[in-house]
Amino acid sequence: MRPKIVLFGDSITEDSFQLGGWGASLTHHFSRTVDVVLRGYSGYNTRWALKMLERVFPASQETDPIALTVFFGANDACLPNRYSAFQHVPLSEYKENLRTIVSFFKKRWPTTHVLLITPPPIDEEARLRYPYLDNPENLPERTNEAAGEYARACIAVANECQVPVIDLWTKMQYSSGWEKYYLSDGLHLTNGGNQLVFEEVIRKLRDIGLSVESVPIDLPLISDIDPNDPMKTFL
Amino acid sequence: MRPKIVLFGDSITEDSFQLGGWGASLTHHFSRTVDVVLRGYSGYNTRWALKMLERVFPASQETDPIALTVFFGANDACLPNRYSAFQHVPLSEYKENLRTIVSFFKKRWPTTHVLLITPPPIDEEARLRYPYLDNPENLPERTNEAAGEYARACIAVANECQVPVIDLWTKMQYSSGWEKYYLSDGLHLTNGGNQLVFEEVIRKLRDIGLSVESVPIDLPLISDIDPNDPMKTFL
Repeated sequence: MRPKIVLFGDSITEDSFQLGGWGASLTHHFSRTVDVVLRGYSGYNTRWALKMLERVFPASQETDPIALTVFFGANDACLPNRYSAFQHVPLSEYKENLRTIVSFFKKRWPTTHVLLITPPPIDEEARLRYPYLDNPENLPERTNEAAGEYARACIAVANECQVPVIDLWTKMQYSSGWEKYYLSDGLHLTNGGNQLVFEEVIRKLRDIGLSVESVPIDLPLISDIDPNDPMKTFL
Repeated sequence: MRPKIVLFGDSITEDSFQLGGWGASLTHHFSRTVDVVLRGYSGYNTRWALKMLERVFPASQETDPIALTVFFGANDACLPNRYSAFQHVPLSEYKENLRTIVSFFKKRWPTTHVLLITPPPIDEEARLRYPYLDNPENLPERTNEAAGEYARACIAVANECQVPVIDLWTKMQYSSGWEKYYLSDGLHLTNGGNQLVFEEVIRKLRDIGLSVESVPIDLPLISDIDPNDPMKTFL
């Protein structure tokens, strides 16, 4: 059976098979070696995710996935006094929830590499142009500063739990023009943003010894089949 | 556990998670309802696929996939006297192999909807510009006429086995300019070609009663969560 990589997170994970999405790129990258399994839940925060963990990942006899991305925080970081307050999770609870999520997976799948991803930065000006609910106050429901606090909390939990982490919040802001280059609505990913997440995931997987080269190829490649005697490959 | 759709075929399946690919579109379409599993093998014909069936699809205790696409023929239809002759499978053997493949799945997974897809048409002029091996004779290794014979054979097997079939060879040629609009190198799919395959697969699945609406959603949608009391959803 092929190994699996599971993508667990919010809309930035759920949407990762849209045109140019990082989940689709990952599937293509590993097309003959690894199955990529999508478990993205738009709008979810760590509080809701925690309640659903057992249901989304029931105990089974299946082998552990080789890796799992945990990509939450963008919704937890909604401000508690703006229109999206119902998604807000206080910072200390976010950290505790993330710890519990990581522990859950370490217990369920002891050999799985868990990889945390911080929320992306927020372009507040774009959030005003793309509210997803009524926004009579005309104030952004997320700020970049708050997202940064959750990103730092995510990194702290990763260090504490000794799992790798992608600091997307910081990485994106290295580039001037990140607001439009990486983000389509101040929060979700453009093709450029998807490409960055894909490259960072590939890089982190490589750091922990997982790459296309390290995983067995499912069936011989056409380039390894002898044109003069193809059937000898299939004896 | 979520239901699965398995995509089994040659490079047109293996490449289906490239930018704009039909497999990625299918995964996105079913992002909260169905797992899409990629089993594409570039260059493979039905003869090689048959030899590998037990290895690719070992008997397991897992439940049957809800659907499976079988998309072979483009390589079988390579001409026996051109540079890609090693991939050629005679028409009568192709039919027999397809029958055996369908029977294998009907036996292994009695409840799975098997969906055949014919090879696409061939743009011979483009094949000359994109040979994938040395082509000293400068003759196309595939012709549209031969692809059409294999497409008709695929349809005949589908009718015989009473499984649905997508006649891609005919459907693509309905549009003038199909050679460039649907095909990137006279054989593989452009974004337009991928879109057509995606839409046809969705349509056929719908015909047999499978759609986003017919499959349970994995966890409540954000739009179904009460902003005034979100946790009541997760009790």
